[in-house]
Amino acid sequence: MYSLKELQTIVGQIFADENFGGTPSGLYDPIVYTLAQGGKRIRPLMLLAATDLFGGDIEQARYAAIGIETFHNFTLLHDDLMDRSPVRRGQPTVYRKWNENTAILSGDAMHILAWRYFIRQPHKNLQPILQTFGDTCLQIHEGQQFDMNFESRNDVTIDEYMEMIRLKTAVLLAGALKIGALYADADKDDIEALYNFGIDTGLAFQLRDDLLDAYGDTATFGKQTGTDIKDNKKTFLLLTALEQGNSNQQQRLRELFATTPQDPTAKINEVLDIYNSLDIRHSVEQRIAQLHDKAMQHLDRIQRPDDAKQPLRQLACNLLDRNV
Amino acid sequence: MYSLKELQTIVGQIFADENFGGTPSGLYDPIVYTLAQGGKRIRPLMLLAATDLFGGDIEQARYAAIGIETFHNFTLLHDDLMDRSPVRRGQPTVYRKWNENTAILSGDAMHILAWRYFIRQPHKNLQPILQTFGDTCLQIHEGQQFDMNFESRNDVTIDEYMEMIRLKTAVLLAGALKIGALYADADKDDIEALYNFGIDTGLAFQLRDDLLDAYGDTATFGKQTGTDIKDNKKTFLLLTALEQGNSNQQQRLRELFATTPQDPTAKINEVLDIYNSLDIRHSVEQRIAQLHDKAMQHLDRIQRPDDAKQPLRQLACNLLDRNV
Repeated sequence: MYSLKELQTIVGQIFADENFGGTPSGLYDPIVYTLAQGGKRIRPLMLLAATDLFGGDIEQARYAAIGIETFHNFTLLHDDLMDRSPVRRGQPTVYRKWNENTAILSGDAMHILAWRYFIRQPHKNLQPILQTFGDTCLQIHEGQQFDMNFESRNDVTIDEYMEMIRLKTAVLLAGALKIGALYADADKDDIEALYNFGIDTGLAFQLRDDLLDAYGDTATFGKQTGTDIKDNKKTFLLLTALEQGNSNQQQRLRELFATTPQDPTAKINEVLDIYNSLDIRHSVEQRIAQLHDKAMQHLDRIQRPDDAKQPLRQLACNLLDRNV
Repeated sequence: MYSLKELQTIVGQIFADENFGGTPSGLYDPIVYTLAQGGKRIRPLMLLAATDLFGGDIEQARYAAIGIETFHNFTLLHDDLMDRSPVRRGQPTVYRKWNENTAILSGDAMHILAWRYFIRQPHKNLQPILQTFGDTCLQIHEGQQFDMNFESRNDVTIDEYMEMIRLKTAVLLAGALKIGALYADADKDDIEALYNFGIDTGLAFQLRDDLLDAYGDTATFGKQTGTDIKDNKKTFLLLTALEQGNSNQQQRLRELFATTPQDPTAKINEVLDIYNSLDIRHSVEQRIAQLHDKAMQHLDRIQRPDDAKQPLRQLACNLLDRNV
């Protein structure tokens, strides 16, 4: 069994050892650029932690770990183009550094590379592994489409929002864990519990992201705060405020989220004032804590010694920035 | 053994029986729209013909046949966006009928669906089948990138052009045949010969496409003639004319292919006059005939009875519009 720190070192080494380059360079350079930016590499970490949890050989899951991170970065590359986001991880996004067609084509090639990593090594569970990966990939795209649909809707419910982030964010964490467990040939019930641990952790992770966008410290979070408000995004915070606010507050929020002022400062401050008066921050933190608790209960159900679960327990705490 | 006509009926039925729809409709409707347009479905036809050639059960290759056509249509969907093509198969392209983001996201979902079809049925050769598919997918994208690179280059050689169309067009026909043969567990040498048959047929097919763009009849070809000239595309015709023309003709062609007049008629006519004076049409037809002959020699080498090869022989003739 590896510690979380050891697993992080292993993941770092796997990516340092892998060469993503190729010919023509116009196709591969944006891929190298994207994958060299690093990021937290949570998904390959979860995948290998799951293999290790069930006593599997993490070397067998090596290329799946690379594949799942490659897929995740492909989705970010195309998302940045669709959202017209200029910056990712402090660097210009691919469509800005190159152009739109390069972002489309290099993204598509990354998507193929992701699958190629997955099919590289034979394994007795290869077919269920690939099916889990394929189902997960498709669900993420369904989630992205729901998110796009929400932009033009004014009647999004909290349940619909939770289902959207389940698809868009949570299933990839859960899928990474399930795939890792399949490499270790874990039993069905344990895989299901681990998958559910991934879903609840993923939901909580997205709610924390929503929270940080409004209340995070720019220096530690690495993003400008208030961008979701500026961009009129339907987040958990807004939907909760619309549910809990009085009719004046509801109406004012709807008005504010229909505007796009040149300087968004006043708009952001007014929205935050409403959120504060309703103690939305506390509501979201409560929901995150509930989801975290549920995730831990799923982890507890898995038929493995408690100390073997420590890396995943710790990883979830780190992701949610909580000490429990 | 099925006749070509029977195989065409089977392919038609397979696509009629398949439901490509799903939720959210914003994601799946463009996929249904694209795949309902039909087209010649050459790639699934080749795949099943190859399975049948080696006595395999084409039912086992059913989902690979759907997968390869889904992948091909995904590449067309993204190509149309990158090329800003307004019409495909007489219908508005997806980015025009919906919008750019829908074209990106639905295309990506189609790409996933293609892989999901491939992994749907277990098969003893599943890993080499998936590897052939993955290699093929990546090569097509490399070819597309080379094609994009050629737009801004003035020193493209005929050899470079042939390599580009090998990647962009020929490997998918060859890959479809190889995958079909793998479903029938054909032997290595036969698979190699069949793959080479696909490459040479694919190259000839692309040269015929280049030829028809300049000399085709709009009514039967379904596209406007002269669009490659209008769009300053480096085709086999232009590169041959640049190689065979005198220095005046070379210079004039370079001048003409650096302009984009509002009304391209005069430009198209002047280019065609140069092509005609050099008998470029005959040069291209000769090259197509050579490639077709080579393709037939590869087919002849395969250790199967001659009449079993008839569907593929006939399919190549149909594709190249030749009676031999």
